[in-house]
Amino acid sequence: MRKSVVGVMGGSKASESVHAMARELGRLIAQHGWVLLNGGRNQGVMAASAKGAREAGGLVVGVLPDKSDKQASPDLDVAIMTGLGDGRNLINVLSSDVVIACPGALGTLSEIIYALKHQKTVILLAREPDPSLERYARKGQVLVARDPAEAVTRAAAVLAEQGSA
Amino acid sequence: MRKSVVGVMGGSKASESVHAMARELGRLIAQHGWVLLNGGRNQGVMAASAKGAREAGGLVVGVLPDKSDKQASPDLDVAIMTGLGDGRNLINVLSSDVVIACPGALGTLSEIIYALKHQKTVILLAREPDPSLERYARKGQVLVARDPAEAVTRAAAVLAEQGSA
Amino acid sequence: MRKSVVGVMGGSKASESVHAMARELGRLIAQHGWVLLNGGRNQGVMAASAKGAREAGGLVVGVLPDKSDKQASPDLDVAIMTGLGDGRNLINVLSSDVVIACPGALGTLSEIIYALKHQKTVILLAREPDPSLERYARKGQVLVARDPAEAVTRAAAVLAEQGSA
Amino acid sequence: MRKSVVGVMGGSKASESVHAMARELGRLIAQHGWVLLNGGRNQGVMAASAKGAREAGGLVVGVLPDKSDKQASPDLDVAIMTGLGDGRNLINVLSSDVVIACPGALGTLSEIIYALKHQKTVILLAREPDPSLERYARKGQVLVARDPAEAVTRAAAVLAEQGSA
Repeated sequence: MRKSVVGVMGGSKASESVHAMARELGRLIAQHGWVLLNGGRNQGVMAASAKGAREAGGLVVGVLPDKSDKQASPDLDVAIMTGLGDGRNLINVLSSDVVIACPGALGTLSEIIYALKHQKTVILLAREPDPSLERYARKGQVLVARDPAEAVTRAAAVLAEQGSA
Repeated sequence: MRKSVVGVMGGSKASESVHAMARELGRLIAQHGWVLLNGGRNQGVMAASAKGAREAGGLVVGVLPDKSDKQASPDLDVAIMTGLGDGRNLINVLSSDVVIACPGALGTLSEIIYALKHQKTVILLAREPDPSLERYARKGQVLVARDPAEAVTRAAAVLAEQGSA
Repeated sequence: MRKSVVGVMGGSKASESVHAMARELGRLIAQHGWVLLNGGRNQGVMAASAKGAREAGGLVVGVLPDKSDKQASPDLDVAIMTGLGDGRNLINVLSSDVVIACPGALGTLSEIIYALKHQKTVILLAREPDPSLERYARKGQVLVARDPAEAVTRAAAVLAEQGSA
Repeated sequence: MRKSVVGVMGGSKASESVHAMARELGRLIAQHGWVLLNGGRNQGVMAASAKGAREAGGLVVGVLPDKSDKQASPDLDVAIMTGLGDGRNLINVLSSDVVIACPGALGTLSEIIYALKHQKTVILLAREPDPSLERYARKGQVLVARDPAEAVTRAAAVLAEQGSA
């Protein structure tokens, strides 16, 4: 059986504290034996979460907007080159069993929206649900976590419920 | 020179009043001599805006999620079959000079987000800016209109500023 | 009812004689009242066929690989910006009722292959069927034309048979 | 450093002998320590090559045309759900360091064409180069192999030359 895939979304620019958080998140995902999937570039939350997962011996898949791997994080095990630009955001979401959304900008928001549209559960890490997401929070499709440990606990519960843990 | 293209986004389900509003919007876009571009299906805001534009003699382009035209609105002049599912939402936005967002759900929201990410101005028709859009409202990339006439007036101003009117 | 859409594929580099042929083809497509759809760039067969159709008062749709219209032919009525790179080749084919393939390179060949895979008839203009296409030629899905007039006669027959002429 | 990725393309229908060949190919790819990437479905060459690689303890990545994993081979380690239909063929190619093409139909041919267009080397396994591919054969971008062992020997040479072996 395939391992569960946890999608980690977040900004291509990240403050030092978000970087540290994403790296810790990657580490915990790997320690749970899950595959970490992200946008693959050597930037921000993508780079940090890949680095953390790699350090903990996990499997890291990056789905890149690019045609080549020139901008790929060095910590990917598998690099998927899509050549789709932001069109790859939908692929990230479709390929994840659960999505953890770190602080980010419009790209991250598009991934949250797509995840909800495609019946995925989204765990917001260190970010509040926009009012537009409140109805999804009420029905449990949007969850909130204060730190990586809580995000991973929530992810485990979602995966267990799906029977994919 | 190509005509300006106004993208009309909105729900695949629409109440009677939203349907009437979208049809009126289509009519006004056509009367301004602009091309109306939407998601192409024979549903909700897509169907209504296409119908209005067609009635006023305008050119209507639908960018469909489907591989075939089975679900296409009968009021399209040009049907682009993408086979991309929701992946076509990005194409809608990239192909529009300005975007008017009618009431809708997650698909419409994804188009607003993509429009902002790709430096397009978004006019919200009969919908309020989410707090997540407020910073874009403050810098004038998100505008608000109460009715189709106001939306079209704002679109004209945006296009004039772009030099594409 | 929507007008028939004739997809014109061919090289982004074109000799003078191919350029003249593609321009004549565009002119004839427009004179038949069909929409001409191509890859949209201001190069080779795309530029020439758009120019010919525009000169004859036809409607020209370009489906661009790019995110912006910077490389668009000036003779398009509608420019679809996909941001998909070569991924847009499939959209060209899906959106055409019949495909005319002019001389070209690998991109054109990919469009022929996709057209056949999606049950479209392909008319080869001034090019011979590869042996790999022969079984499609035998069952009439690949046709051959020596000049634009013959290509357009064949296209008319295909469209008539589809009931989309 | 990431492992080399060998793309295995081929028909979704496969005779028993092609199935056996693809399974042996998968096994050899895994034994070389390469990642096997294919179209991911539980059919034909995709299913057989995934099975072989999995049996030999390799890492298998499937890039599916679908939005869900319902049609995924059970032998994938990573399933990328694209929702792009045949549009995913380009991603398969862009994500491979070298492509091995087994017997197949139009989909496989589209992948060969895309691979050549994007400067990848294609190894034809148990298939002859079409005349349209002959110029690529002459310059060494298309290679021929009679059996899986020869295909893998050629792949090793290509990867060594790329410095990605």
